[in-house]
Amino acid sequence: MAKERLVIIGGDAAGMSAGSQAKRLNPDLEVTAFERSPHTSYSACGIPYFLGKVVDDASSLIIRPPETFREKYDIRARVRHEVIEIDTSERRVRVRDLEKGREWNEPYDQLLIATGAAPQVPDMPGSDAAGIFGLGTLQSGLDIERFLEESRPERAVIVGGGYIGLEMAEALMMRGIRVSLVHRGAQVMKSLDRDMGKLVSEALDKAGVSLYLEEEAQGFDTVHGRVSGVVTDRRTISTDLVVFGLGVRPVTAIAQRAGIPLGARNAIRVNTLMQTEVEGVWAAGDCAESFHLVSRRPVHIPLGTIANRQGRVAGVNLGGGYATFPGVMGTAMTRICHLEVARTGLREDEIRGSGLEFETAVIESRTMAGYYPGASSIFVKLLAEKGTGRLLGGQIVGGTGSAKRIDVLAVILHGGMTIGDIINLDLGYAPPFSPVWDPIQTAARVLEKKI
Amino acid sequence: MAKERLVIIGGDAAGMSAGSQAKRLNPDLEVTAFERSPHTSYSACGIPYFLGKVVDDASSLIIRPPETFREKYDIRARVRHEVIEIDTSERRVRVRDLEKGREWNEPYDQLLIATGAAPQVPDMPGSDAAGIFGLGTLQSGLDIERFLEESRPERAVIVGGGYIGLEMAEALMMRGIRVSLVHRGAQVMKSLDRDMGKLVSEALDKAGVSLYLEEEAQGFDTVHGRVSGVVTDRRTISTDLVVFGLGVRPVTAIAQRAGIPLGARNAIRVNTLMQTEVEGVWAAGDCAESFHLVSRRPVHIPLGTIANRQGRVAGVNLGGGYATFPGVMGTAMTRICHLEVARTGLREDEIRGSGLEFETAVIESRTMAGYYPGASSIFVKLLAEKGTGRLLGGQIVGGTGSAKRIDVLAVILHGGMTIGDIINLDLGYAPPFSPVWDPIQTAARVLEKKI
Repeated sequence: MAKERLVIIGGDAAGMSAGSQAKRLNPDLEVTAFERSPHTSYSACGIPYFLGKVVDDASSLIIRPPETFREKYDIRARVRHEVIEIDTSERRVRVRDLEKGREWNEPYDQLLIATGAAPQVPDMPGSDAAGIFGLGTLQSGLDIERFLEESRPERAVIVGGGYIGLEMAEALMMRGIRVSLVHRGAQVMKSLDRDMGKLVSEALDKAGVSLYLEEEAQGFDTVHGRVSGVVTDRRTISTDLVVFGLGVRPVTAIAQRAGIPLGARNAIRVNTLMQTEVEGVWAAGDCAESFHLVSRRPVHIPLGTIANRQGRVAGVNLGGGYATFPGVMGTAMTRICHLEVARTGLREDEIRGSGLEFETAVIESRTMAGYYPGASSIFVKLLAEKGTGRLLGGQIVGGTGSAKRIDVLAVILHGGMTIGDIINLDLGYAPPFSPVWDPIQTAARVLEKKI
Repeated sequence: MAKERLVIIGGDAAGMSAGSQAKRLNPDLEVTAFERSPHTSYSACGIPYFLGKVVDDASSLIIRPPETFREKYDIRARVRHEVIEIDTSERRVRVRDLEKGREWNEPYDQLLIATGAAPQVPDMPGSDAAGIFGLGTLQSGLDIERFLEESRPERAVIVGGGYIGLEMAEALMMRGIRVSLVHRGAQVMKSLDRDMGKLVSEALDKAGVSLYLEEEAQGFDTVHGRVSGVVTDRRTISTDLVVFGLGVRPVTAIAQRAGIPLGARNAIRVNTLMQTEVEGVWAAGDCAESFHLVSRRPVHIPLGTIANRQGRVAGVNLGGGYATFPGVMGTAMTRICHLEVARTGLREDEIRGSGLEFETAVIESRTMAGYYPGASSIFVKLLAEKGTGRLLGGQIVGGTGSAKRIDVLAVILHGGMTIGDIINLDLGYAPPFSPVWDPIQTAARVLEKKI
């Protein structure tokens, strides 16, 4: 009997997690992954740290190269191979070898689409000039690195104030580059409420980033095909380098052409097993939807944690086991200019959209006992349903030791628990780690009085 | 109409939290606190850091001195005053002014006992010699400090390997003192399972502490009334200073004499409102019981977090509001020689005592993304009920960023959640904070296969 064939489109977190997991459960499975870029299974989240020279070597971001998959897992991972068409009725994909130009049809019994997401690069006058980059794959990071080494830019403009934009702003500053940031919103980080985003804007300003808030990039000036300025609705900012930080969109055109239904923000619609609506076709990672467990709506949240977890679930099911991915809480975090930033659940505007009545509290406390050296400020914002006190979201901005506190709130959300539950939690305390009332509990005590 | 009188015995965390809270809710209440020592409302947990010169000034450990309570809260806090008798039928206490020697009866309408806990100092030959200390009140810390300054000891022996013993070992090493530690158990930190305690023993050994495990102090050699050696069942260890780290016992003799029922380990029995079984008498803090929400048994866990939370609950109820203290999870943490140590829930021997069937998993992971500079080892142990997968306990030992991860497990316990829930948690990730699978989830994935 012929072996069952699993074909995976995309060789990063979701795809290769799934492939390894499936192969572990069912060693008879024949697993082939096609990856357009030259790299498999790398930490995209680590690229800004490589560019900032916090991490010395790009190769340390690669968790497993193709050879490891071949030798250790018996998985064929073929890089520089692009799947250009999916035929779900014939159960085959059309593959192009990007080096040799050869094309062929590859049959599958089960197909996993893990094509990821790509940076949003708006089509504006001059946007094809040299020196303008989006950051997505490891290869795109290496392209920026080569540009930094060869062109030694003195000035950079980041267009967009999301996670990648801010991480890139910091990375470029660490390379001695003068950084400006153009952002449409009133504060950076639209994943935070404005009052919390303001704390991040202030930290960037203090760190020396020139902030152009409520301002929109509309095009680029170029000289001899190289970018020389960013034209906004208010001014032109001279620059040698532009990096887009406008977020990413799921890479799903190929799925759409194959008739596989898309959902939130054009991400591929999946059930909790990670199956698409087409028989034998699965999807996982940044190209797939998630279900938001607080808003109870499908969302598209492209993050490494979710990609790995979705990949694991798809892999268990593809390997003959059973696992589900119930959904996400919207947890995310980063560190910008020594400031730790984290969020989970819903923001104010997201709650308003759902029609729930809610109250909020923001407190300032300390990351450690007040008398302990190194203690710094931490701001905690909690959002809870009026009447019931059910937690709906939380945001944290502060010094070292702040961000991972969001995990407590993520578990509270997971359990559908309340502000009263937070007050009653038996959280850990010792002077180097926390005040005796953890800042999260201090915020809960303030919010409790309003509910 | 005469004002209602609340008398509080004990002026530290539980007593003064309760007093402030009650007064805030009911400004007409007349609140008087009697405190035997010279200090109110201080961080006992901070004393080892003061002695280790991490914290410069003992006064920074004092959160609120008596004057603040008088001036800001309209609470009379009388230090150096000892309550020597409680008469619950006449509703009065007998107070002794320790400076002037005067005694009188103080009537009350409501009485809160917040007498705290005191270090266990076993009665052994020579144990009354100079240079032998227990660490409890801030005053006892100041006594040790004076001894360190005046006698300049070169060698110290810690008797007992619990939290305070280990924190004192580190503090004295930071003062340049050679430290030995005598501990009856096979590994230090009996609040951990032996496999996790071993990691702490190894760190102490590596830091230069001479460990005498499975060895028992039986008495002391003295010269001219000063300690000169610790006599164990195997040897005599020469020393200039001895500090007991054998844990604390609740200070409840006065309550017992008044006929107030005691419970676990002679702590005062209380309900979830923090009422004792005697009308008009309440108890909170290190002298009171807690209910363990995992073992479903009364326990005595003397910790600052619990004292503050119990004090708040007692205060709300005494002020005419309503609050309950449902219980504790057994969460505790510390940092010893750069190693962060945390635990929650039940240990193996505690689960065995309850008759539940369980499985465990211990994993080693990294505190940050493996490629991120500063990432260090973290060990996570999870214990869960066989069959159901319900989490029963967890222990963490590792580098910076390890300890507060225990809070996630404390919330999981609070919600009665399972290992499967842990795998599905949407925890925060960014390279400076965590691997893409948080170590807690990695442990859950290993344990899931055994359940």
